[in-house]
Amino acid sequence: MKKIHVGLIGFGTVGSGTAEVLLAQAANLRRKTNLEIILKTVADIGIPVLPEQFSSTTLTRSADDIFNDPEIDIVVELIGGIEPAKSFILKAIAAGKHVVSANKALFSTHGREIFEAASQKGVEVGFEASVGGGIPVIKALKEGLAANTILSIMGIVNGTANFILSQMTDHGLAFESVLKDAQAKGYAEADPTYDVEGIDTAHKLVILMIMAYGINISLSDVSIEGISRIEPIDIEFARQFGYRIKLLAVSRNHGDHIEARVHPTMVPEDHLLANINGAMNGINFQGDMVGNVLLYGQGAGKMPTGSAVAADIVDIARNVARNCVGRVPSLSYLPSEIKDCVITPMEMIRCPYYFRISAMDKPGVLAAISGILGAHGISIESVIQKRRQSVGSVPIVIRTHEAQEQAVLEAIARIDALEVVSEKTVTIRILE
Amino acid sequence: MKKIHVGLIGFGTVGSGTAEVLLAQAANLRRKTNLEIILKTVADIGIPVLPEQFSSTTLTRSADDIFNDPEIDIVVELIGGIEPAKSFILKAIAAGKHVVSANKALFSTHGREIFEAASQKGVEVGFEASVGGGIPVIKALKEGLAANTILSIMGIVNGTANFILSQMTDHGLAFESVLKDAQAKGYAEADPTYDVEGIDTAHKLVILMIMAYGINISLSDVSIEGISRIEPIDIEFARQFGYRIKLLAVSRNHGDHIEARVHPTMVPEDHLLANINGAMNGINFQGDMVGNVLLYGQGAGKMPTGSAVAADIVDIARNVARNCVGRVPSLSYLPSEIKDCVITPMEMIRCPYYFRISAMDKPGVLAAISGILGAHGISIESVIQKRRQSVGSVPIVIRTHEAQEQAVLEAIARIDALEVVSEKTVTIRILE
Repeated sequence: MKKIHVGLIGFGTVGSGTAEVLLAQAANLRRKTNLEIILKTVADIGIPVLPEQFSSTTLTRSADDIFNDPEIDIVVELIGGIEPAKSFILKAIAAGKHVVSANKALFSTHGREIFEAASQKGVEVGFEASVGGGIPVIKALKEGLAANTILSIMGIVNGTANFILSQMTDHGLAFESVLKDAQAKGYAEADPTYDVEGIDTAHKLVILMIMAYGINISLSDVSIEGISRIEPIDIEFARQFGYRIKLLAVSRNHGDHIEARVHPTMVPEDHLLANINGAMNGINFQGDMVGNVLLYGQGAGKMPTGSAVAADIVDIARNVARNCVGRVPSLSYLPSEIKDCVITPMEMIRCPYYFRISAMDKPGVLAAISGILGAHGISIESVIQKRRQSVGSVPIVIRTHEAQEQAVLEAIARIDALEVVSEKTVTIRILE
Repeated sequence: MKKIHVGLIGFGTVGSGTAEVLLAQAANLRRKTNLEIILKTVADIGIPVLPEQFSSTTLTRSADDIFNDPEIDIVVELIGGIEPAKSFILKAIAAGKHVVSANKALFSTHGREIFEAASQKGVEVGFEASVGGGIPVIKALKEGLAANTILSIMGIVNGTANFILSQMTDHGLAFESVLKDAQAKGYAEADPTYDVEGIDTAHKLVILMIMAYGINISLSDVSIEGISRIEPIDIEFARQFGYRIKLLAVSRNHGDHIEARVHPTMVPEDHLLANINGAMNGINFQGDMVGNVLLYGQGAGKMPTGSAVAADIVDIARNVARNCVGRVPSLSYLPSEIKDCVITPMEMIRCPYYFRISAMDKPGVLAAISGILGAHGISIESVIQKRRQSVGSVPIVIRTHEAQEQAVLEAIARIDALEVVSEKTVTIRILE
């Protein structure tokens, strides 16, 4: 039985999960591959010894011990972050090793350099675990949907943000209170910025877009808006209109330009994405041949992510064993076929909108507001105007027909400048 | 650019769809594979000429022209049914051709013979399109979830049955009336037996189970019950209990025995499977490492199924081009590793149950019924007893805690023998 040797850098949550998956599934994988996948070396500076079950694996403090080991075929980077992860990966590639990593922050910002180096060296880079945790979403894009032009991507790809929105929805709680609770329980990090401000979601969208369309794109191309401004009242109005609010990664392919955006979105309650709750992830691809395909599962966690890392290891191991490395290009498209593209300016996107306007409860206010919307070509689908509960402003909630972002920005600027409007209007895009 | 030649047998809905997908995606596939996939020959006895856009493809009435053509690498069988499809596939294999097919009826009944022949000849058999239409479910099982022991499979894999149940649910209509309407609109076949009686769903479950567990199993191992006995009143009671009724393929892996069953099932309304409506399909795998992964999409149709057939063709073409045929075993497990298994007897399965008992509205009836259930160790979770609308029997609806099928069969036999019970009790299993 042919042996494939793996070196693992980083024995944290996902690193130890991957090691456990490889150990637990060794017999199962032999039945499928006729290969013995051996975790030969772990490099980690934070642990004194490896757990007992990894007695045949060597622990080192220096990743160089992995790069310099000619027996190691595949280097798995699971320390995350930009440096030293990037240097480690480039060193591994330079040493002729294949690479597997879950590092979405790195690939979405420095991916081009890494994939060019890998292509020149003729090694593979696997990153199934970088998007959607254990869900085989990268494999589906690269192979299962190969015979499709992808028309759109819509995904819930950050479990923390989805957990917070789900808790706010189910219990009518405020963002801050749910976040604190999530932090106390370890579901959200001490600094939750990446998760709740949509940055992690954008990292993942970048990776999906590169794979789906064969384009050069990086994080700065994505328009990003997080969920920290969502209030329980918006969730309640969404419910009245038949929607649930989700933090979505959205990309639509218009052929000559492509949308790239992350923002809270009102999703129709009978849409499958509206029913993906808690920390779960779901990603919908629309292919021109296949129509909509949605994949759902745990987007994070030790064992699910380990399952995806292991799938990449197995994939590359099969190629090494059969001498067909590069059988499927790492980025789905051949390196020479990856093109620059035009990202749709946010002002050009079109969708229905939700506005929550805080206005004084005076006669003529709604007329003034609807006059401005009409002047900007924005057509109203429905209005909810609440009675005043106490002194001060009341919410006027408007759902529009499809409108253009540019017109919305201009109209809302004028509305917010009205004397009777007391706060900045909350605007949420609606998924058709 | 290397050329891969394809011969297609059967130019019906899926056959012509596959041809159209290959044509429409030719440039896209070249950007991904550096291969030219050429539809060289179509064999079909029902059409006089091929549509104009296939001017470089030869039409023949004899499939032998494909088997005898040394240039053809891959034979695609899309005529369906057992014969002559089986003979064609065996001839193609004997001629050293790789095979792609969507033929679930054939693979679930004669798969063993076909896969043994292919294994001996060293050719691949692709059948992504046989389950879940365009959804890359086979690829997910074989590769994306490779590093998992599959613990359970639950799927809505027949679009016709799901469409009928969805219409019954949304409009409160009777089975017969929805079926007639579906037949008139072409959503259901003139003879709907395979779809509504669960046979097609069982075909697909067999294929998924072989792939998931590495076992020998065929159609006769599956316990099958269709949806034709479901009445609007059951759907309405299901709704009151918080469930929707779906025709599910269910398999649970108990290690030393494995469940294989198809039947109407009450699915909790917040479960994603309960929200898969119309003709859509959804398949949930539970892996021991990854947890639950669900895939959703169009389970049938010309272009979605063509997309899946094309994905198999691309997969095999890559292997042919890189000389790594058999890189992933066709059945996920190595042929030598596919084992016999014990199928769980239906009497042994355990789940909560729904009973609709038609009884005379007399004092003491509920006491008699609950006495029998109690004597068989079946514990009641809730009861709905409707007032009598007119003369005759009234429905007594019971939801139980988890119970064993054997006890349920015995108890219901005794209940149905009561003098006050006027009709055979309707029993529906509930998904926990």
